[in-house]
Amino acid sequence: MSVKRPKGTQDFLPAGSPGFSPEFGASNLNFLTATAQQVLERAGAKLIFTPVFEEAELVKRGVGDSTDIVRKEQFTVSHHGDHGGYILRPEGTASLMRAYMENGLKQLPLPLKLWTHGPMFRAERHQKGRYRQFHQLDYEIIGSDAALVDAEAIALMWNVIEALGLKHARIKLGSIGDAADRERYNAYLRERFTPLYDQLSPDSQDRLTRNPMRILDSKAPVDQELIADMNIQPMLDFLGEEAAAHFAEVQRTLHAWGIPFDIDPTIVRGLDYYRRTAWELHHEGVGAKSALGGGGRYDGLAQALGAKDPIPGIGWALGVERLLIAMQDEGLTFPAPPRPALFLAALDADQLAVTAELALGLRHLAQVEFAYRPLKMKQIFSEAERRNAVWVGFLGSDEAASQTVSLKNLDTGEQRVVAQAALADVL
Amino acid sequence: MSVKRPKGTQDFLPAGSPGFSPEFGASNLNFLTATAQQVLERAGAKLIFTPVFEEAELVKRGVGDSTDIVRKEQFTVSHHGDHGGYILRPEGTASLMRAYMENGLKQLPLPLKLWTHGPMFRAERHQKGRYRQFHQLDYEIIGSDAALVDAEAIALMWNVIEALGLKHARIKLGSIGDAADRERYNAYLRERFTPLYDQLSPDSQDRLTRNPMRILDSKAPVDQELIADMNIQPMLDFLGEEAAAHFAEVQRTLHAWGIPFDIDPTIVRGLDYYRRTAWELHHEGVGAKSALGGGGRYDGLAQALGAKDPIPGIGWALGVERLLIAMQDEGLTFPAPPRPALFLAALDADQLAVTAELALGLRHLAQVEFAYRPLKMKQIFSEAERRNAVWVGFLGSDEAASQTVSLKNLDTGEQRVVAQAALADVL
Repeated sequence: MSVKRPKGTQDFLPAGSPGFSPEFGASNLNFLTATAQQVLERAGAKLIFTPVFEEAELVKRGVGDSTDIVRKEQFTVSHHGDHGGYILRPEGTASLMRAYMENGLKQLPLPLKLWTHGPMFRAERHQKGRYRQFHQLDYEIIGSDAALVDAEAIALMWNVIEALGLKHARIKLGSIGDAADRERYNAYLRERFTPLYDQLSPDSQDRLTRNPMRILDSKAPVDQELIADMNIQPMLDFLGEEAAAHFAEVQRTLHAWGIPFDIDPTIVRGLDYYRRTAWELHHEGVGAKSALGGGGRYDGLAQALGAKDPIPGIGWALGVERLLIAMQDEGLTFPAPPRPALFLAALDADQLAVTAELALGLRHLAQVEFAYRPLKMKQIFSEAERRNAVWVGFLGSDEAASQTVSLKNLDTGEQRVVAQAALADVL
Repeated sequence: MSVKRPKGTQDFLPAGSPGFSPEFGASNLNFLTATAQQVLERAGAKLIFTPVFEEAELVKRGVGDSTDIVRKEQFTVSHHGDHGGYILRPEGTASLMRAYMENGLKQLPLPLKLWTHGPMFRAERHQKGRYRQFHQLDYEIIGSDAALVDAEAIALMWNVIEALGLKHARIKLGSIGDAADRERYNAYLRERFTPLYDQLSPDSQDRLTRNPMRILDSKAPVDQELIADMNIQPMLDFLGEEAAAHFAEVQRTLHAWGIPFDIDPTIVRGLDYYRRTAWELHHEGVGAKSALGGGGRYDGLAQALGAKDPIPGIGWALGVERLLIAMQDEGLTFPAPPRPALFLAALDADQLAVTAELALGLRHLAQVEFAYRPLKMKQIFSEAERRNAVWVGFLGSDEAASQTVSLKNLDTGEQRVVAQAALADVL
C-alpha cells in the first residue's frame, strides 16, 4: 500500500499536473509571496522567519487557552528526549512578537515593520478553504500605538489585494476599545446572557464565566439563533473617549487615502491583549463564513508573553489558499510557468553528448531542456510540444559532421539550420 | 517569564538585528532560494511544495528504521482526534517521490525535474551547522536511469554552488552499485566484522545483522578506530559490470563538462533502495564531519513507498545554513537589504497627514518610509540615518504653505526644496 499525505494537507504542484487546481499551485504560492514582498518592502517591512513549531506555552498565551485553536485544533510536537511541549504554530503573530522580544529587535528603528510567510497548522475539519496545513502572509508593525500606524497597516493589506488584481474584497472595520471598555462590555454581556444560561451551548456557558465576548463569536447554531433574537448592543457602543478618538482618526485617514471599508460594529476579539482597531477582509468567493484575512491591534500581547512593559503592535494575516480561491472566483489569471526556449535532442547515441553539452552551455541565457536518450524525429517533435518549447532542435549525423543544429520554431513554423556555435544568437 | 523559541531552533532575522549572524539572515535564506531557482528553472525544474509533516510510515520506509534519523531524531506530530502517526519531515526526497506517485505526476513529460525548499527537522544535539529545524534546497529528477541524468544532477548542484560564488567546495563521488553488488559487499563486510563482533559499538553490532554497510558510516569512535585498522575494501571494488559502466559514463560526462570531482571509494548508503551514483559536497568552512549537501540515485525508493513497478530517480539536497556558513568562510558578501529612497517626516502634527499621503503615493516607485509622529529637526535626520535612507525630507509650516518638501541627500549632501507634486521626479 502506498503512503499518502496526511489528512487535510495538500501538495502544491507544478501547473499542468493531473487534476491541477490553482489554489494548490506551487508557483502561484510563490507569486503571492513575491507580490506581497514588493508591496511590503516598499513600505520598509523586513523579512523574518520563525520556526514552524513553538513552545506550547507561547501558543496558549498568544492565542488563548479558551479558543478552539488551542482546545481542539492543536498539533503537538514531541521528541522522546524532550518534555514534548511543542505545538505546530497556528498563526504567526505570537511568534513574531516572541522573536521581537527574544532577539532585542527594539534596537532597530521603531516602529519596526516585519513580514513573514509560511505554513500554519490547525487540525480543523476538512472543507473548502480550510486545510490542516495552510499558508499565510503576515505583516506586523511593532512599537507604536499611533492611529496612523493602524491606517497604514490596513492600507498595506489593501495594497496587496490591489496588486493581486482582486476587485471584490471588502474590509470590515471595527474597534474593540481599551481594556476598561471591554470590561464594561463584558459586564453588559454577562447581564444579558446570564438569564439565558440554559439556552447557551456548553462551550458558551463556559465562556460566560471566562470571556463573555467570545459567545458572540460562537459557531454553535443554538448560540447564533439565540444571539440573533437578543438585539445585543455592539462593542462599538462601549468605546471610551480615547479609543473612540483613535477609531475616528483611523477612519478619517483611510478615507483620505481612498481605502474603502465598511464599519462592522459586531467585530469582537476574544483575547484580553487585543486593543482598539480590528478588521476582517471578506470575499464572496471564499464564502461568508471564511475571511481572506484579518488584523488587529494587540498592545497587550507582549505582556501576555512575559514582557515587563507593554509593547504596542498591530498586524494582519492573509490566507494564501483563500486568496488563490478568490482570484479564481474573479477570473484572474496566474503567471504562466516558464517555458523552454529550446528542446534539443539527438537522433543517434553518437550525438547525445554534443546535445547535452550545447544545452548546458546555453542555460546561462535561457531555459533549455534536452533528451537524455536518442529519439526518433517524431518523438523529438512530440516531446518538444509537450514541454511547450519555443524552438525544437535536433542533431543527426549530418548536423554532427557540419557542427550545426536543425531548428524549428514551434510558434511560427520557421525552420533554420544554424552553426552550433551560433545557437545562443537564436535564443 | 518570557517564552523562548524551541531548543535548537533559530529565528531568521533582518540584517542589522542585534547579534545578527548571516547564516540566520532571512533575506540571505531568500537569496539562496532565488539563486537555486534561477539555476534549476533554467534546466526545466518545476517547483513543488509538500507538507512539513508526513505519515510516520513514509519516513520509516523512506529514510529507514535502522537510521539515527528515525530511531533517535524524530519529532512526532499528533492531534488528539487522530492516530497521531505523523512526523516532521527529516528530509525531502521521500515526500517528493510520494507526491509524484500520489498526484500522478508521471503524466508530465519525463524525466520530471522537481525542486523544493523549506524546513526539515531532526532532533540532533545542538552544534554549529546542525539545528533541529534546518533548511534545505532540494532537486530531484524522476523517471530515467540514464547516466546523463546523474551527471546533469551533479552539474546542477555544482552550478548552484558556482552561482553563489563558492570556490572551495569539493564533490566526492562514488557508486554503491546495484542490489546484487551490495549483497556481495555486505557478505564481505559480514565476513570481516563478525570475528570482531565484541569490539563493535552496540549500534554496529545490531547493524552487522541488519545492514553491515551502515557500520562504515558509524559515528562511534570505537567503530571508527576499528575500521581505520582493518584495511576494508571499498564498495567501488564490488561494482558489477553494468554499475561500473554507468559510473564510468557519469565520470566521463562530468569531465567533458568541466565539473571537478574527487572519487571517494568509501561512500556508502545504508538504505536498500539506493543505487549506483552517490556523492557528497564538502567544504572546509563547515568542518570535515558535515557536508554542504549530498545526493544519490534511488531507483528502489518508489517500491519501498508502495509502488508496484520501479521508478528510477536521482536527486540532491543542499543545507541552507551550511551554505551560508561556507559563504562567510570564503568572505563572500550577501545582497544588501533594500534601503529607503526617502524618509519623510513632519515638524508639526498639522503636516503629518500630508507626509503620510505623500509617502504612500510614492511607494509604487520606491521604498519610502515616514514618521508616524511629528519629530524635531535633529530627530528627523537621526531617524533617516538609522534607516540608511538616501533622501531625508521634511515638512514644516513653510513647506506646507508652499506645498513643497525640503530634501537632503544623505549620500551626497545635496539640499533641495521641491514641489510636493514633483517628489516622484527626485526619486
